[in-house]
Amino acid sequence: MARSCLAIILAAGESTRMNASRSKVLFPVGNLPMISHVISAAKAAGVGSVALVVGRDAEAVEAASRDVTDNLSVWEQKERLGTAHAALTAAQAIEEGYDDILVIFGDTPLVRSETLMQSRQMLADGADVAVIGFRTDKPHGYGRLIEENGELVAIREERDATDEERKIEFCNGGLMAINGHKALEMLRAIGNENAKLEYYLTDIVGIARDKGGRAVAVEASNRELIGINNRAELAEVEQLWQWDRRVDMMKSGVTMVAPETVFVSHDTMIEADVTIEPNVIIGPGVTIRSGAVIKGFSHLEGTTIGSDCTVGPFARLRPGADLQSGSKVGNFCEVKNATVGEGAKVNHLTYIGDASIGAKSNIGAGTITCNYDGVNKHFTQIGTEVFVGSNSSLVAPVAIGDHSYIASGSVITRDVPSQALAFGRARQENKEGVAEKIRARNHAIKADSGKPKK
Amino acid sequence: MARSCLAIILAAGESTRMNASRSKVLFPVGNLPMISHVISAAKAAGVGSVALVVGRDAEAVEAASRDVTDNLSVWEQKERLGTAHAALTAAQAIEEGYDDILVIFGDTPLVRSETLMQSRQMLADGADVAVIGFRTDKPHGYGRLIEENGELVAIREERDATDEERKIEFCNGGLMAINGHKALEMLRAIGNENAKLEYYLTDIVGIARDKGGRAVAVEASNRELIGINNRAELAEVEQLWQWDRRVDMMKSGVTMVAPETVFVSHDTMIEADVTIEPNVIIGPGVTIRSGAVIKGFSHLEGTTIGSDCTVGPFARLRPGADLQSGSKVGNFCEVKNATVGEGAKVNHLTYIGDASIGAKSNIGAGTITCNYDGVNKHFTQIGTEVFVGSNSSLVAPVAIGDHSYIASGSVITRDVPSQALAFGRARQENKEGVAEKIRARNHAIKADSGKPKK
Amino acid sequence: MARSCLAIILAAGESTRMNASRSKVLFPVGNLPMISHVISAAKAAGVGSVALVVGRDAEAVEAASRDVTDNLSVWEQKERLGTAHAALTAAQAIEEGYDDILVIFGDTPLVRSETLMQSRQMLADGADVAVIGFRTDKPHGYGRLIEENGELVAIREERDATDEERKIEFCNGGLMAINGHKALEMLRAIGNENAKLEYYLTDIVGIARDKGGRAVAVEASNRELIGINNRAELAEVEQLWQWDRRVDMMKSGVTMVAPETVFVSHDTMIEADVTIEPNVIIGPGVTIRSGAVIKGFSHLEGTTIGSDCTVGPFARLRPGADLQSGSKVGNFCEVKNATVGEGAKVNHLTYIGDASIGAKSNIGAGTITCNYDGVNKHFTQIGTEVFVGSNSSLVAPVAIGDHSYIASGSVITRDVPSQALAFGRARQENKEGVAEKIRARNHAIKADSGKPKK
Repeated sequence: MARSCLAIILAAGESTRMNASRSKVLFPVGNLPMISHVISAAKAAGVGSVALVVGRDAEAVEAASRDVTDNLSVWEQKERLGTAHAALTAAQAIEEGYDDILVIFGDTPLVRSETLMQSRQMLADGADVAVIGFRTDKPHGYGRLIEENGELVAIREERDATDEERKIEFCNGGLMAINGHKALEMLRAIGNENAKLEYYLTDIVGIARDKGGRAVAVEASNRELIGINNRAELAEVEQLWQWDRRVDMMKSGVTMVAPETVFVSHDTMIEADVTIEPNVIIGPGVTIRSGAVIKGFSHLEGTTIGSDCTVGPFARLRPGADLQSGSKVGNFCEVKNATVGEGAKVNHLTYIGDASIGAKSNIGAGTITCNYDGVNKHFTQIGTEVFVGSNSSLVAPVAIGDHSYIASGSVITRDVPSQALAFGRARQENKEGVAEKIRARNHAIKADSGKPKK
Repeated sequence: MARSCLAIILAAGESTRMNASRSKVLFPVGNLPMISHVISAAKAAGVGSVALVVGRDAEAVEAASRDVTDNLSVWEQKERLGTAHAALTAAQAIEEGYDDILVIFGDTPLVRSETLMQSRQMLADGADVAVIGFRTDKPHGYGRLIEENGELVAIREERDATDEERKIEFCNGGLMAINGHKALEMLRAIGNENAKLEYYLTDIVGIARDKGGRAVAVEASNRELIGINNRAELAEVEQLWQWDRRVDMMKSGVTMVAPETVFVSHDTMIEADVTIEPNVIIGPGVTIRSGAVIKGFSHLEGTTIGSDCTVGPFARLRPGADLQSGSKVGNFCEVKNATVGEGAKVNHLTYIGDASIGAKSNIGAGTITCNYDGVNKHFTQIGTEVFVGSNSSLVAPVAIGDHSYIASGSVITRDVPSQALAFGRARQENKEGVAEKIRARNHAIKADSGKPKK
Repeated sequence: MARSCLAIILAAGESTRMNASRSKVLFPVGNLPMISHVISAAKAAGVGSVALVVGRDAEAVEAASRDVTDNLSVWEQKERLGTAHAALTAAQAIEEGYDDILVIFGDTPLVRSETLMQSRQMLADGADVAVIGFRTDKPHGYGRLIEENGELVAIREERDATDEERKIEFCNGGLMAINGHKALEMLRAIGNENAKLEYYLTDIVGIARDKGGRAVAVEASNRELIGINNRAELAEVEQLWQWDRRVDMMKSGVTMVAPETVFVSHDTMIEADVTIEPNVIIGPGVTIRSGAVIKGFSHLEGTTIGSDCTVGPFARLRPGADLQSGSKVGNFCEVKNATVGEGAKVNHLTYIGDASIGAKSNIGAGTITCNYDGVNKHFTQIGTEVFVGSNSSLVAPVAIGDHSYIASGSVITRDVPSQALAFGRARQENKEGVAEKIRARNHAIKADSGKPKK
């Protein structure tokens, strides 16, 4: 579309019903703030510039918006005098001269770019206003879209509607496209002669028609106009969003045994022929390559999982975990800022942080990289085909050479040369017959006081 | 309401279809026995005394009831001769003289106090019997409530109903309020001239009217009268109960990314602006303060989580865990009967039991408090700003002084003074070139026998 | 039923929409390949011989089929020329002479044996063809089953149907039973004079009638005929299958707090009075005895859990785990190929692999059986009433005698005699006042470079 377009995003609400310490448009859906979803949809609909109308938490809302667009102007709505008043807060932006103006609410993260594009197309086809509506079999309370001969003649509020009009199931969704060259004139013509003394954007339909212009309605799917007012509605929208993404992924070749228990993020990338067991949480920044299997109860963030890897159950991969092809991270293992080399195994009860593990190395159960000294984080370098015995502590900074072997239960504080055997553990002693004495002593303590000593 | 009220709770059933080793009224919903839910609703409806009619598991049912009310009399129904017979088991209690009698089933844990109050109000307004009913579009099999001029004239069983009556969608829920001063006379007038030779409480409607009294119907929501007969129905009721609680919490300002995966208990307290990731199980006795974040796959019981704490993923907090403000308990960590001081961190693969951790202390990955000697539990006292190196064992009873530092991999059996460095680990030795010999030996063992030696 | 029966299973499809590296009939439902479900249903319907028509992944499909039946012949369909062509690929099998032929799709894993038996009964009653159909209120696109006087007169495709016929809600499910003695003649009479030049099995209805035979329709439940074409449909079928199994289990006396979060396998055996908390994944080969409690976030495969055991939360039981009565496996514990004796406890952060633990032994937190030497797996034998102190490493092969006592933090490399105390850990040293120096040094390192050293 060669037409220029400005999107005015209304995000100045108080978010009272969220009972929150921040604006509702900052709440995430799929781990992305809802304002960012809205702006992304606008961009995908060909919007070149965004005018953000803010109130509460202006700085944070602006920051979340800048994460997805550079072409942003910010306008503060100091009083809440209605949607038309909010849109006019960005009057200067409108004056820059655009063919199309889209007015979109910041709390409708499911709005689709296709719908926005369709409303712009109506402007291209000669309409001055294109209102986005939806159909519902429970229209009570919504403004009805009154159409005649393909034109939108009025948006009728419930209280003003005739019995016949109340039967109409096509309702006002609030979003609209406006002829950019007439927008200011029309918006400024909106008055506030009503009970609440507010300036309602919906009045623009009558104004357009009074000026000899044409208004039309565009139908969106029911769900994409859901506005979020409280956290229960936020959860509903999250669930709809998650289902869409899960179905997309499954259709593209990802197996999900129980998709309702898999949670993905806005930027999740999963290749075909990946299998995901029930109960997997995927945070931001995750890529999973073909052939990988993610077992149940895994929690992934900021991680890349190579082809044919096996992860979980009960694995936690944190930012910077890079699992190369065919490697395994098993139960009760945490990997952070670390590379796990091709075919390497980290199978049980292990913490790998700030480290690299060479190809085909085997990290025994209970191994801990001691990466933190209370002040600094240090690095652990493990070579290829290393065998780290169970329950070992690798005190970083430390380097473990290729093909070396660390005895179980060792505390490793110095570098281990390639091919070396390292051990750092005490020699075992058996004291025959002493167990009974210990038990007798312990029972005596119990007789003295059964409670934990404090 | 100044009127006195006795609730007769019918809990004598055999619970056959539960296939259970205990009475069904003991099964929990939201981790509270269903009998306790029913009695709590009665109390909230102004019931002063409870007459509990028991059969199977009388002692346990009484105990669960006493957990929620002190004013309780218990009556054993020795034969199962119908609901009116069950109610009359408590005749002596009725004789104490109450304005209102409520008859409630012990297996309807979703009954609302508002509905019970409404039925009592009908008595206050002059009715002798107020039957609680519900509407359903599948009434087949239920007794229909036949109303005329605002009065309930009959409860018609399916088999006795005319075609016209079968179309009625207002059905008998079984619960009712009865004029306390006429209850005994009316209950005793109920006969057993029917196929099963049982005494049916529903006959009281005809009896009240025969005596010149007035019967009425009160409408409850469909779901609050669900009786539980098998464990599939128990699960359905649990799900309905959980959804109500989740929605309440979300509306009050709790974020739940996926509420369908969060399970709460009857006494769960969560403040506004808490965030709960998917897959969190909250058992009894949990309080979570504002600003806390509970990450996925966390399991909480009997614990207090202070403001701005971070818990999980994969955290288990057991009874007596007390997390003070801003503290963190991370993945694969278990905390039991222990205080975690302000800003302290227990981040990875750690067991803290019978302990206190001072403010700002850092507990390294893999730390274990060895609190059990096989007979007794002992206490571990950790001061403020202590650094416990990874993979350490703290053998209780032991005290670790403020600002002290424990080297990674240490076994600590004696107290550590403030400011001291403690270590208890062997010195590392590297044996160059030996790894290859070990591998050769291991391969020789394999050649000898590849299977685990038993 | 004394009649002989051959089932022709059509499993030659390309599975294009699965975007998969293998045939869709190999994808599991309840951890059993869907082809195995179909063949099992056929066997339960009295099918004696199975003719498997394969295309892609012939060997794997055959193997999955042989897992559930021995009486199998395999026929390769080299071209995809329609369902009748596919059935005729098995012409030689038909020629062996059966009373009944069932034609079943390999991608309908929910088909019930009762439905298949009902279609065979129609043959016994004199029909030549019995087509299995289903009712839907959205019949658009399906072939309609046109019945007259109890006979099936035609299967009308959407494009050929009159307006009146399009209202019919009884649709063709594709599966059918055919008189075995007339099957070849009828199948060979099917032509391919149609747009796609394919041989359609549905034409057999007209052919049977033309030859003076009788065709009938049999009604299946809507869901049992669902064919799986992509992974979203696979997930839907999995969900339906899981719900059936969960409800069966609950009705038989298993408590599931949140059945929607419990995932079972085709061979899961759970006795009455077992309690399962939310979020439990049960893989193949699991038996759970009465009185056991499985807490949340548990992952079970190939394991037997004895009566009154407690498992989880966060337990992983792998193949060969055998928990005897009253034993406990707690949080962040993994047990593999190991027996846990009666009343024994493995409560925290432990890996038990290739081991046996005697009755009443207590395995301390953080214990690791070091069963792998990089080449071989070795066995750890733990006697009865042994106390293994926390954070111990048991380096297999090793035997720990009855009633012995292992000190916390020990590395055990040699056998421990009965009644002995074993320890293998360094002595603790406290260096007073040194902690401050360490911190100062660490801060100096930080000043030098704040980043992890690589």
